Amino acid sequence: MLENPRAVPGYRFSGVHAGLKGDGALDLGLMVADHSCLLAARYTRNQVLAAPVTLSRAHGASGRCRALVVNSGNANACTGRQGLAEAEATADDVASRVSCPRYEIQVASTGVIGRPLDGECLRDALPAAMEALDDSSKGLVDFARSIMTTDRQPKLQSATVGAYTITVVGKGAGMIAPDLATMLAFAITDAPLPQVLLEDLWARVVRKSFNAIVVDGDTSTNDTALLLCPADGDEIDEMTLAELQRALLACCRSVAQQMVADGEGARCLVEIQVSGAPTKEQADDAARAVATSLLCKTAFFGADPNWGRILAAAGRSRARFDPDQARLLLKSDGEEVLLFERGVPADVDTDHCSALMQKSRFGFLLDLNNGDKGRRIWTCDLGHDYVTLNSEYTS
Amino acid sequence: MLENPRAVPGYRFSGVHAGLKGDGALDLGLMVADHSCLLAARYTRNQVLAAPVTLSRAHGASGRCRALVVNSGNANACTGRQGLAEAEATADDVASRVSCPRYEIQVASTGVIGRPLDGECLRDALPAAMEALDDSSKGLVDFARSIMTTDRQPKLQSATVGAYTITVVGKGAGMIAPDLATMLAFAITDAPLPQVLLEDLWARVVRKSFNAIVVDGDTSTNDTALLLCPADGDEIDEMTLAELQRALLACCRSVAQQMVADGEGARCLVEIQVSGAPTKEQADDAARAVATSLLCKTAFFGADPNWGRILAAAGRSRARFDPDQARLLLKSDGEEVLLFERGVPADVDTDHCSALMQKSRFGFLLDLNNGDKGRRIWTCDLGHDYVTLNSEYTS
Repeated sequence: MLENPRAVPGYRFSGVHAGLKGDGALDLGLMVADHSCLLAARYTRNQVLAAPVTLSRAHGASGRCRALVVNSGNANACTGRQGLAEAEATADDVASRVSCPRYEIQVASTGVIGRPLDGECLRDALPAAMEALDDSSKGLVDFARSIMTTDRQPKLQSATVGAYTITVVGKGAGMIAPDLATMLAFAITDAPLPQVLLEDLWARVVRKSFNAIVVDGDTSTNDTALLLCPADGDEIDEMTLAELQRALLACCRSVAQQMVADGEGARCLVEIQVSGAPTKEQADDAARAVATSLLCKTAFFGADPNWGRILAAAGRSRARFDPDQARLLLKSDGEEVLLFERGVPADVDTDHCSALMQKSRFGFLLDLNNGDKGRRIWTCDLGHDYVTLNSEYTS
Repeated sequence: MLENPRAVPGYRFSGVHAGLKGDGALDLGLMVADHSCLLAARYTRNQVLAAPVTLSRAHGASGRCRALVVNSGNANACTGRQGLAEAEATADDVASRVSCPRYEIQVASTGVIGRPLDGECLRDALPAAMEALDDSSKGLVDFARSIMTTDRQPKLQSATVGAYTITVVGKGAGMIAPDLATMLAFAITDAPLPQVLLEDLWARVVRKSFNAIVVDGDTSTNDTALLLCPADGDEIDEMTLAELQRALLACCRSVAQQMVADGEGARCLVEIQVSGAPTKEQADDAARAVATSLLCKTAFFGADPNWGRILAAAGRSRARFDPDQARLLLKSDGEEVLLFERGVPADVDTDHCSALMQKSRFGFLLDLNNGDKGRRIWTCDLGHDYVTLNSEYTS
């Protein structure tokens, strides 16, 4: 089902150099759909909103989108009225070029916050970005590159279901992002998903993908996740629809995990799975407590099977459980090793466990044995490179 | 009011080497009061409880305490029934030696978790600990040393109010503690504080001292904070009582800040003050969000005046506020520098701000301008030594 990145009929992409980044690096991405699309959108819940989020949220209420303009190199956050005016001017410019209502334009920015955005420099590059629009995978990859900040790799994933294609493109390097680890993700498909389902479907997929990754527990002022699909088309049968949903989730999870795995700071991708919780919220809370715990993340970095830290992190969460009934397993390389059961440590070979934690991908299963709800969260280790990259004097 | 550590009449202390730590280091601390004392106690809220906490919580329900026995080198946590049996046997042994009911014994442990505690080794050293009991400051300092784990310094603070003395002794090195950063704090006084106020008074003091420090956001399985005072004595007038409360809070804050400042990992002590919140809970939540944010803590390490991270961390907390109404100031070395106001950055000299952040102590004041409640939290930076110390393969 999952495939190499591929263009989706009906959507054209480009990425150009406007001048916000040095060295001629791509910093302006444009996506224009052939027709007005249905839109489902999720934005950051941070109260400190970047100007493009304020604008896009208002536009997004229309449930429609024709074009998307993204810049890297400047987050346009904490920039006051002038910042909002720049975002509006850019949206207006794109709207007039593609001849659509301005509310059909989504704007996103990522980069340093608190510095005025040079909107003129962006808009001067719009003709070149329009010119470069391309319906092959080249345009898509240029776009993916143009929205990178400290990402080392562009992040893309495609899938096909029957005659339909889904492509998700994202950015976010969490672990190494010096400024708030903005997460941007854009999913497009040529499958005419039913409008009545769109919001719920996207909310569920985002919860299980982009909201199921933890890097440093900080929520950006700019986080944006959009889903676009055609507004018209033949009705999709139920089986295909179910398959499309699974494919969309798989693509989003792939891009989300690429975000966690990216960055020099991260040595390993760690899955934290909690089962046996009384409610979904408690399962989420326990998994998130472990996934954000500094003591757990530094132990992951050191490949230290210090299971007490995992248990203690879950213990301070809002999830109710009896430690004497809980079980903890390490999962790696096809193996499952019991670490803790019935209130006491299992008799384990700690050197072997450490070797299993030296893999680039492993996980822990914590069964709270107090219900039937579960949650999976992906996190990474915390090492020296994270500290180096995040403590540099940026101003 | 604050003074060098001094003994308190009516309490004798000792610290000896039992053998849980190598190199003859002190690892068993004993405190015996001349008479049965009133006790107010706060224990960890972690659901994963160490055996000594389970036992001490049950004993503490009596509101009485005669003696306190503490070991370092082993947390006696996640050790099942055997661990509880060891804690009980140790408490019974101390009770029979000082001739008091067993419920008047408090037991605390700190060290590695998940390893069986050699209780026999501890109890074999009790005669020596009884023998060494001392009513001068030597016994007190030995006790303070005996409860250290990765602490570099013993942590003590005394104060006198009229004829009364207050002494607080604690341990906890947060930033560098390899196993859960257990926080232990014991406050003793010869002032006969009114029994009816004791619980509330201690809860309030703990909230403003030991619960107002953040190192890594993890809550230990062993955290314990006890207050002891004589059960009998002359009534204290209201003015002296108010002064005693202030002195107790000052001592506890001093020891709490010693915990944050200790450890090779911590370069600086950072005060996060939030004002103008609608409720106390929201003020606490905003201050804690900043104090635990990895992006903020790494910026503190790098002396990077990256105020956007502070605003964004508060923005994702549960505190309600309008960023356009908020103000943020850097406080250091007697100076106050405005960083952000009315939705936009102030025009600041970032090099000067960075220099102010290179001090060993500085702070930020975030005025949410949405109410009259406030909160102060002390945190530290996150640097390479934290990673090194917490990622070493301990097992």
